[in-house]
Amino acid sequence: MDFRSDNVAGAAPEILAAVIAANVGAVTSYGGDPLTLQLQAKVAALFETEVDVFPVVTGTAANALALALLTPPYGAIYSHADAHPAGDECGAPEFYSGGAKVVPLPGADGRIAAATLAQAIAAAEPGTVHHVQPASVTLTQATEAGTVYRPEQIAALAAVAHANGLGVHMDGARFANAVAFLGCAPADITWRAGVDALTFGATKGGALAAEAVVLFRRERAAELGFRRKRAGHLLSKMRFVSAQLDAYVTGGLWLRLAGHANALARRLGEGLAGVPGVTFRFPVEANEVFPEMPEAMIAGLARAGFRFHRWGGPGSRTLRLVVAFDGREADVDALVAAARRLA
Amino acid sequence: MDFRSDNVAGAAPEILAAVIAANVGAVTSYGGDPLTLQLQAKVAALFETEVDVFPVVTGTAANALALALLTPPYGAIYSHADAHPAGDECGAPEFYSGGAKVVPLPGADGRIAAATLAQAIAAAEPGTVHHVQPASVTLTQATEAGTVYRPEQIAALAAVAHANGLGVHMDGARFANAVAFLGCAPADITWRAGVDALTFGATKGGALAAEAVVLFRRERAAELGFRRKRAGHLLSKMRFVSAQLDAYVTGGLWLRLAGHANALARRLGEGLAGVPGVTFRFPVEANEVFPEMPEAMIAGLARAGFRFHRWGGPGSRTLRLVVAFDGREADVDALVAAARRLA
Amino acid sequence: MDFRSDNVAGAAPEILAAVIAANVGAVTSYGGDPLTLQLQAKVAALFETEVDVFPVVTGTAANALALALLTPPYGAIYSHADAHPAGDECGAPEFYSGGAKVVPLPGADGRIAAATLAQAIAAAEPGTVHHVQPASVTLTQATEAGTVYRPEQIAALAAVAHANGLGVHMDGARFANAVAFLGCAPADITWRAGVDALTFGATKGGALAAEAVVLFRRERAAELGFRRKRAGHLLSKMRFVSAQLDAYVTGGLWLRLAGHANALARRLGEGLAGVPGVTFRFPVEANEVFPEMPEAMIAGLARAGFRFHRWGGPGSRTLRLVVAFDGREADVDALVAAARRLA
Amino acid sequence: MDFRSDNVAGAAPEILAAVIAANVGAVTSYGGDPLTLQLQAKVAALFETEVDVFPVVTGTAANALALALLTPPYGAIYSHADAHPAGDECGAPEFYSGGAKVVPLPGADGRIAAATLAQAIAAAEPGTVHHVQPASVTLTQATEAGTVYRPEQIAALAAVAHANGLGVHMDGARFANAVAFLGCAPADITWRAGVDALTFGATKGGALAAEAVVLFRRERAAELGFRRKRAGHLLSKMRFVSAQLDAYVTGGLWLRLAGHANALARRLGEGLAGVPGVTFRFPVEANEVFPEMPEAMIAGLARAGFRFHRWGGPGSRTLRLVVAFDGREADVDALVAAARRLA
Repeated sequence: MDFRSDNVAGAAPEILAAVIAANVGAVTSYGGDPLTLQLQAKVAALFETEVDVFPVVTGTAANALALALLTPPYGAIYSHADAHPAGDECGAPEFYSGGAKVVPLPGADGRIAAATLAQAIAAAEPGTVHHVQPASVTLTQATEAGTVYRPEQIAALAAVAHANGLGVHMDGARFANAVAFLGCAPADITWRAGVDALTFGATKGGALAAEAVVLFRRERAAELGFRRKRAGHLLSKMRFVSAQLDAYVTGGLWLRLAGHANALARRLGEGLAGVPGVTFRFPVEANEVFPEMPEAMIAGLARAGFRFHRWGGPGSRTLRLVVAFDGREADVDALVAAARRLA
Repeated sequence: MDFRSDNVAGAAPEILAAVIAANVGAVTSYGGDPLTLQLQAKVAALFETEVDVFPVVTGTAANALALALLTPPYGAIYSHADAHPAGDECGAPEFYSGGAKVVPLPGADGRIAAATLAQAIAAAEPGTVHHVQPASVTLTQATEAGTVYRPEQIAALAAVAHANGLGVHMDGARFANAVAFLGCAPADITWRAGVDALTFGATKGGALAAEAVVLFRRERAAELGFRRKRAGHLLSKMRFVSAQLDAYVTGGLWLRLAGHANALARRLGEGLAGVPGVTFRFPVEANEVFPEMPEAMIAGLARAGFRFHRWGGPGSRTLRLVVAFDGREADVDALVAAARRLA
Repeated sequence: MDFRSDNVAGAAPEILAAVIAANVGAVTSYGGDPLTLQLQAKVAALFETEVDVFPVVTGTAANALALALLTPPYGAIYSHADAHPAGDECGAPEFYSGGAKVVPLPGADGRIAAATLAQAIAAAEPGTVHHVQPASVTLTQATEAGTVYRPEQIAALAAVAHANGLGVHMDGARFANAVAFLGCAPADITWRAGVDALTFGATKGGALAAEAVVLFRRERAAELGFRRKRAGHLLSKMRFVSAQLDAYVTGGLWLRLAGHANALARRLGEGLAGVPGVTFRFPVEANEVFPEMPEAMIAGLARAGFRFHRWGGPGSRTLRLVVAFDGREADVDALVAAARRLA
Repeated sequence: MDFRSDNVAGAAPEILAAVIAANVGAVTSYGGDPLTLQLQAKVAALFETEVDVFPVVTGTAANALALALLTPPYGAIYSHADAHPAGDECGAPEFYSGGAKVVPLPGADGRIAAATLAQAIAAAEPGTVHHVQPASVTLTQATEAGTVYRPEQIAALAAVAHANGLGVHMDGARFANAVAFLGCAPADITWRAGVDALTFGATKGGALAAEAVVLFRRERAAELGFRRKRAGHLLSKMRFVSAQLDAYVTGGLWLRLAGHANALARRLGEGLAGVPGVTFRFPVEANEVFPEMPEAMIAGLARAGFRFHRWGGPGSRTLRLVVAFDGREADVDALVAAARRLA
């Protein structure tokens, strides 16, 4: 009954099976294998446009590579203050970009508002040589608050960004959860809305370790290949990563798994909503629930064997409950029941 | 019949089985899982000393992380000119170290001689502010020439290095092949001989994607944790990498697989030695054979379906034939027979 | 009547004379000249302790070099949000440190409070691999608000810093103004209060282009020499920079010039305090005055030929008025008189 | 009688006078002053084309800034093995570029041959993701061997470079000596021959500390402004650097001083040519002479008070004798006479 993160889960059987199936015979290394080659077309079909796809093994790497492509060393990267590039990657964007500055922005429910971005860019006085130059914005979809940017919100942000010469990156560690929630086409919240580069996450969604940088603006794709190699993220036996991504996007597996997690999170949210003393920090949209509870209830849940993180540091009474792709209804119901008992 | 690299091979069944077995239930992410925790003790036992172990997924990452720990931005890294850090990592050591300089050194049979290192350090005029400062040396074991450093050669190099304040890194992408060839203890060619940090390779040896930085000088181990995270090489579902390393070192699997590859390489070398017109660029010690052949024989082998790389660029008549952990005697014998027919 | 910055001023005659005097004969280049060598002892005497002195030509360079010495690439640098390292050096600290993160802190009157620093460090969860690690704090003395840290304030900040393993840097672009205001020994607000490295500014104080990194913690001084060279800040004809610093600290010139500027700023502040409609954003302590005025008064001053910047961007009604080392009483009085007329 | 370097000399009186003259009144800082603004036009006129001019204070900074503009972090910079970017800047090009690799090339008389460059580029296998990508070449004019590239040699090198997508940088620390020797227009050995960016040196030629990056390919000039600021090389009182450059190029001063130094070097070379036992390592073209001498003669010259460096390290019997802009005929003749006595 582990609600700490979608990272505590293992891998989906279909994805593991694909890894096993990929272990046949000798193939060209470093991404010259058939699985990697065909992945380009599969992802292009998924997004209904030409793309360049660069598989890697962590979201941090995918984010940092994409941001380094969009941001010169003297650039500013705008990020929600709670988003991973701002505070949970130990400075990866700074490292990969050669010392750019990540500027944290506030925003309700984990989202940046277009007006906030516009204001921040203006405050940076672009062109003034004393200040880092606004270069990119990164949007987390679904957000760290478990909410989901709507297509028009993304379009508004991208419009501000592009009008000011910034590139738009989307950190899609939980991209599947966002698409499953919105019921839209993947294109609707990416390139059609103005996203230039996407971290297409699969690890949280059921892979062992597989993410991909997906470039919609392709003119600098070659550069990403060199940056990936130089970062040690070009795997020699790439087939084993590509196999995961292939299985993930095949037959709608990714949306099935994400839809399942979302549904259980909704069930968890609705269940807790009925518990006296429980309120919610953020609306439940993707696969995370942020209930605020009395300390006694929190302690009781912990004693009962439920595992979770507090949101906002040790003292906080807000929990972050994450339902993974393989979450079980019984666990969700058990938590709700326990909370009710403790109320 | 693919002799291009040990990277074209898949994974050993025992290692894949360990990955499958690791896919059970929820565990703490980012290396807090039982497999990763116990790996520390297992690797310590293997090396008969306390160590810090940092699993990653590529040799480039392991090399660059280790070298960045040993080398300040204003430092020089000495590397054999044919070794990966010098020319095949697209500048990863430069990237990770913040702009150190990799100084290529010559050396017969892929090895750096202690005298060559001593000379290079002296020529750098340590302490002169105009020059990058000698900071580290990286030794590839087994070398890119398929040869193996002897313990006393490593000790001599390390003595020169330490006397001048340099750290000693060993790139052990084919460490297993070296140990299997020497029949020594892993400690004999690492910390007992003066190695400070090792890239303990498993990918070429039969893993899907698993290497580890093993630190024998442990005082700056914490720093490596931050550097790894910041480079995007801390996997959230780390268990799947640790499981590979665990299986690799359990029950002597790593040496059994490497011994098999070495034996077949020796068989290949001995077979080709009997073919008129074939000479050898380097002695056969690990799992690589470098025969020089008439162009007609090379062309004939290619036509016969054998795959291989030339050593030293397009025009070269020296082949690099690599036997992987799963190499087959029949393929080796077929190549020898084909060469004999073409002689 | 230019109150835009102390940088719009030229050089003090005594300092220019020293440059001229230094232009005699051949001397060893790159800092091996007598002036540079003797500067070490002079600055040591000034600070009543052994120091290492590294002359450079800009405050940005001095700050970034010092911070890079105190901060690993995965580190956090705490800086007042209005201070230069946070926003006015185009990312120099990030560049020099290899991608550290400058964390802006709030603080009344341009000063960071010790409690604010302590809170920020705690919030960073030191030791957690996902976050950059608290590594250094930079204090601007005098601050960008024209105020001055008291010795006990610095000591309190340094105590928090050192208790958490952070290094303490002081940006002393206007160090002379602070010392002149406090009437203390230079040591009292540097190493005696816990400062590890100082940017000892002379440019704003009357030099052409001369600053020095002064290290009180000397164990890594050699490293700074390499970092300076590699940054292109080791001048070949170093004598011409050292001559400026030498003249600056000789015979109390630096404090005489700063005292003059401070006195005029006080006069300016007192004069404006008597003008109806004028209030002050910050107390006047060093050589800057921040009056808030009606827009008509601001416009009138501009029309009258006074030059100044607004504080906080185009729309602001707060002016930043800076009096340089060579400020003239007549100009100050003229501005006050004009403001009075416009009231 | 100091022949160690042109850096041991002071400043030309005309240049020092310009610095003194610049010390009048308040001007806009950070390069907004009249002297800096007019410098753009003066340098443009000198080179007979539109340029962007960025004054800095060291050749290392100018070289590194220019190379960083031409070279991505994953790029290779080709440099003569004896040139400053390869070995005498403590890794400045690596630092500024974010970790590019400086590839040293051999070449007779301090010059790179076009064929050597072409070969090196081919050997790098451009496009292969494992290798750093050929990005730029830096030519030292006059070379470290005291020789001078002819316009057609530069054109040949630039043709190779541009055909392969490389940028061409010229390190003109002794650009004046080269132009004075060739008697050509500055344009003839820069943009007309294919140079994209020039380090226009004045320090060695008689300034206190003044160099300029001159961009002939101007499309990325804005970027250089940010890079310069971030490197701490945008001086607040820029007028004092611009004044030096202004005086240097006004009325042909730069060529007069360089011509004087060249003439004395030629006199020195011709004088030594008549001394038995003296041979020359390189032809004398600019302001340096490289005589090879018996050890007794070297020791005798040192005893007689002449100061010089050996070329190629402590044991070498080749001297490097540099004549500065203010060299004296008497000193030159004295050295020749002394050598003759010692023969």
